[in-house]
Amino acid sequence: MGHTADRRAPWRAALGDIIYNADTPAGRVFDLFLIAAILVSVLAVMLDSVAPFRVRHAAALDAVEWALTGLFSLEYLLRLITARRAWHYARSFFGVVDLLSILPAYLALLLPGAQYLLIIRVLRLLRIFRVLKLVRYLSEASVLTRALQASLAKITVFLAVVLTLVVILGTLMYVVEGPQHGFTSIPTSIYWAIVTLTTVGYGDIAPKTPLGKGLASLVMILGYGIIAVPTGIVTVGLTQAQRSARREAAPAVTCARCGLSPHEPDARYCRRCGEGLPT
Amino acid sequence: MGHTADRRAPWRAALGDIIYNADTPAGRVFDLFLIAAILVSVLAVMLDSVAPFRVRHAAALDAVEWALTGLFSLEYLLRLITARRAWHYARSFFGVVDLLSILPAYLALLLPGAQYLLIIRVLRLLRIFRVLKLVRYLSEASVLTRALQASLAKITVFLAVVLTLVVILGTLMYVVEGPQHGFTSIPTSIYWAIVTLTTVGYGDIAPKTPLGKGLASLVMILGYGIIAVPTGIVTVGLTQAQRSARREAAPAVTCARCGLSPHEPDARYCRRCGEGLPT
Amino acid sequence: MGHTADRRAPWRAALGDIIYNADTPAGRVFDLFLIAAILVSVLAVMLDSVAPFRVRHAAALDAVEWALTGLFSLEYLLRLITARRAWHYARSFFGVVDLLSILPAYLALLLPGAQYLLIIRVLRLLRIFRVLKLVRYLSEASVLTRALQASLAKITVFLAVVLTLVVILGTLMYVVEGPQHGFTSIPTSIYWAIVTLTTVGYGDIAPKTPLGKGLASLVMILGYGIIAVPTGIVTVGLTQAQRSARREAAPAVTCARCGLSPHEPDARYCRRCGEGLPT
Amino acid sequence: MGHTADRRAPWRAALGDIIYNADTPAGRVFDLFLIAAILVSVLAVMLDSVAPFRVRHAAALDAVEWALTGLFSLEYLLRLITARRAWHYARSFFGVVDLLSILPAYLALLLPGAQYLLIIRVLRLLRIFRVLKLVRYLSEASVLTRALQASLAKITVFLAVVLTLVVILGTLMYVVEGPQHGFTSIPTSIYWAIVTLTTVGYGDIAPKTPLGKGLASLVMILGYGIIAVPTGIVTVGLTQAQRSARREAAPAVTCARCGLSPHEPDARYCRRCGEGLPT
Repeated sequence: MGHTADRRAPWRAALGDIIYNADTPAGRVFDLFLIAAILVSVLAVMLDSVAPFRVRHAAALDAVEWALTGLFSLEYLLRLITARRAWHYARSFFGVVDLLSILPAYLALLLPGAQYLLIIRVLRLLRIFRVLKLVRYLSEASVLTRALQASLAKITVFLAVVLTLVVILGTLMYVVEGPQHGFTSIPTSIYWAIVTLTTVGYGDIAPKTPLGKGLASLVMILGYGIIAVPTGIVTVGLTQAQRSARREAAPAVTCARCGLSPHEPDARYCRRCGEGLPT
Repeated sequence: MGHTADRRAPWRAALGDIIYNADTPAGRVFDLFLIAAILVSVLAVMLDSVAPFRVRHAAALDAVEWALTGLFSLEYLLRLITARRAWHYARSFFGVVDLLSILPAYLALLLPGAQYLLIIRVLRLLRIFRVLKLVRYLSEASVLTRALQASLAKITVFLAVVLTLVVILGTLMYVVEGPQHGFTSIPTSIYWAIVTLTTVGYGDIAPKTPLGKGLASLVMILGYGIIAVPTGIVTVGLTQAQRSARREAAPAVTCARCGLSPHEPDARYCRRCGEGLPT
Repeated sequence: MGHTADRRAPWRAALGDIIYNADTPAGRVFDLFLIAAILVSVLAVMLDSVAPFRVRHAAALDAVEWALTGLFSLEYLLRLITARRAWHYARSFFGVVDLLSILPAYLALLLPGAQYLLIIRVLRLLRIFRVLKLVRYLSEASVLTRALQASLAKITVFLAVVLTLVVILGTLMYVVEGPQHGFTSIPTSIYWAIVTLTTVGYGDIAPKTPLGKGLASLVMILGYGIIAVPTGIVTVGLTQAQRSARREAAPAVTCARCGLSPHEPDARYCRRCGEGLPT
Repeated sequence: MGHTADRRAPWRAALGDIIYNADTPAGRVFDLFLIAAILVSVLAVMLDSVAPFRVRHAAALDAVEWALTGLFSLEYLLRLITARRAWHYARSFFGVVDLLSILPAYLALLLPGAQYLLIIRVLRLLRIFRVLKLVRYLSEASVLTRALQASLAKITVFLAVVLTLVVILGTLMYVVEGPQHGFTSIPTSIYWAIVTLTTVGYGDIAPKTPLGKGLASLVMILGYGIIAVPTGIVTVGLTQAQRSARREAAPAVTCARCGLSPHEPDARYCRRCGEGLPT
């Protein structure tokens, strides 16, 4: 947006073009190579956690992880160096994700197990929409985001009520069923209430007494019913976000005589009163 | 609404201002302190139910619970004394909740276990929206409430049909599967039908015979489908509540000749007397 | 609707008034008494299936069931005799339900266990909306029914696709997982697919192999996503049913000059062009 | 659409009429017979997988499967021979399905177990809508398809976010709970995250530690909430698809002066040239 004069050295500007821009052939090759590397890296983290696989291929996995971590570290440095505004990039969503994607590898030297946090690299894959020129998807994503933001206040109220409900219902079940039926404490019973209200229903804890089953039935029907609330909220929010997105794409014309609005994009006369429309 | 002359003594009015009003600095401090106390109290009730914790910290927990119960009892008395209309407060939603939030502590002296009912204090936390001046959240909450009220008749009809369904389907499963497969009685089978129809699916009771599995499949597909009904109801109700909320928010135009108000947003002439409206 | 001349004897007409009409005091008492009897009867059927209760109170349960069956049989006969058109009643929804509500009791003399089918009496409870003069609920029920009827074709197509999906996905899982992991046959695997797609998830059958878990993940995400389809269908159907119900309640007036429609119920002038409206 | 001159021999045209056309009595008989054969075949594949049944009726099942496979092979050849454009049919949806419906039988000679893939014949049953002249259902299906296509971009964005979420949440749970509580590897934990987020909840893997239960509660509430997103997307898409379908169904008015068509339902003047439209 804010277009500041470009004060980068020519080689930095050229390199930045390759790294940040997916329009040039070189930039495209860079981005596709990057996405492939991320995919391999995420796969390596996953396989590293599969015991039989790790035992057999420990050396290969280590090599891949360190090679890719080196590569990503280098890339992060280059991004910082070649960015038009380094600090702006470092604080952006992808800037933070890029940093978090290399830190756990170094952390794992001190804290074994931390290498699994490298999985956060999966977030970098979201760049794929921008790389593949899926502009349409980006604009749809912005409609979704706007709808969710508009619904935020309503959803917060809904969540506050739901959390209050599960605390009370969970405690009631603790009193009714008691530790001997698996409801070992109030926090555990609240966990059960969440499992039940959201209709997940693991079955690791389930009521045994008739009164408990009756209360559980109530929780289930409640959960089955109130899922309608966030759905309604998001649908209404989405309808409005969609409408305002369309309105921004085509500003509405109003008939000077009868006041009818909106008109179709190709209209030159008011369809209601026949008056000419301003163009 | 009804503004009666304030006949409270000055000290009562001043104290009432602190307790009931969150706009003044003193009132704000009071409210934030209160919310912290409620949070500590709810946490104490929860931890009291965790056996290993209770064994080790019984004395501390007791001290905290009694201290806070004393505090809340004092607060309730002060609210009664300093309220503009004590009886009005006592019968209001928060008035009843405030009372119920202290009673279980005294009840527990006679009836061990009753102290867990103190969890009802979590309801007092809902005051947070008012305290934190989240007015926008309150108005969203009122839109939600209005939508649910408008949908009440439809949801009652829906619930009546669902309850009838689970009674019949549960009994059918009892006849088909029988006690030897876990469907030990009709009430238990109805409980199973609710667990299945709401798609919770604990798995503590599950059909074993082919016919039972077929019938269960029907129940599941039914449950999967009819969840659409409350969702549709709430969405339609919410759309209307939203629209009428927006209409109320829009400045009302008044007809200069006959005084009719409000008018629809696109009105250019008074619908009652035909006079032109200011635009 | 079709008003035929009443050719019933006076005593039949008077009795019919009590039985069919809930407006007179006598009719109201009759209906409330009937609903109480149905409730007791449904409760008796349920308790009859609870083994410990049946053992202790077999005689009392038998007495209650036979007394109420006799009562309902008598009522059915009286309904037939006093109906304006007996055959019309016998074929109506409640006529069939009333008959089905007494047959299982006699059937149980030949076929032990049939008495549980008496639970169908719960359907008679739906009369409560009519009895309690919940006219508003009846009109809401008709809006719901109309919305579901309008959505029927779409829902049939949706169900056909879902059923085809579960058959194919179930068979795939049978091939992938095989009998040794609980997927003992294709019908059982289809049952699993339904349990999973509808997000019920008992857990009595669950994939064990990596490939099976991958396929199951696909089924779950599919089921999680396509529940949006019936919900969307019903919401759209409900919006339209609601709108046409409102339109029928108030016939739309059209402005003769500019053609604007609809107008608010109290409009006497067109709000767009100021023309007088026909009244 | 493209009407090419029919260069088939008369007997091929006549046979093609029976096979492809469901309007003539002969074509109708052929189609109904075909659907019955498909149903029998699908049933045979299912029963073939039920061990006790296969043991007893192996010969009969084999006979039925080979007879029907021969029949369907013959039908496929006839369809190819009698089609107006054989290659066009072979590449169409039903052309591919028809081929896939016979291949597994021959494949099973080399690869035992492949015969279960014959279940794909169930897809051929979808022809039933065309055969039974359920034109209305076909047009509803096209509204549904159009709505889903319009929502495709939004749903892809949603799925990408959900998949990213389950990868991160699954890994977190692997770190928190670890192999000793059933979260044996990251892929398994991701599988758990999908089972939980979609509210399926088998319960074969469930968190045991307090921290794990807290994280799981978050996943559940998230899953319970974000199901609102695809629902909202589809509802909005369906509303629009419905509206444009209705607009197409409404008789198009053509402007007498400039020939513009179609016009909006409420148009009284041509929006391009201002001419009055016939009403």
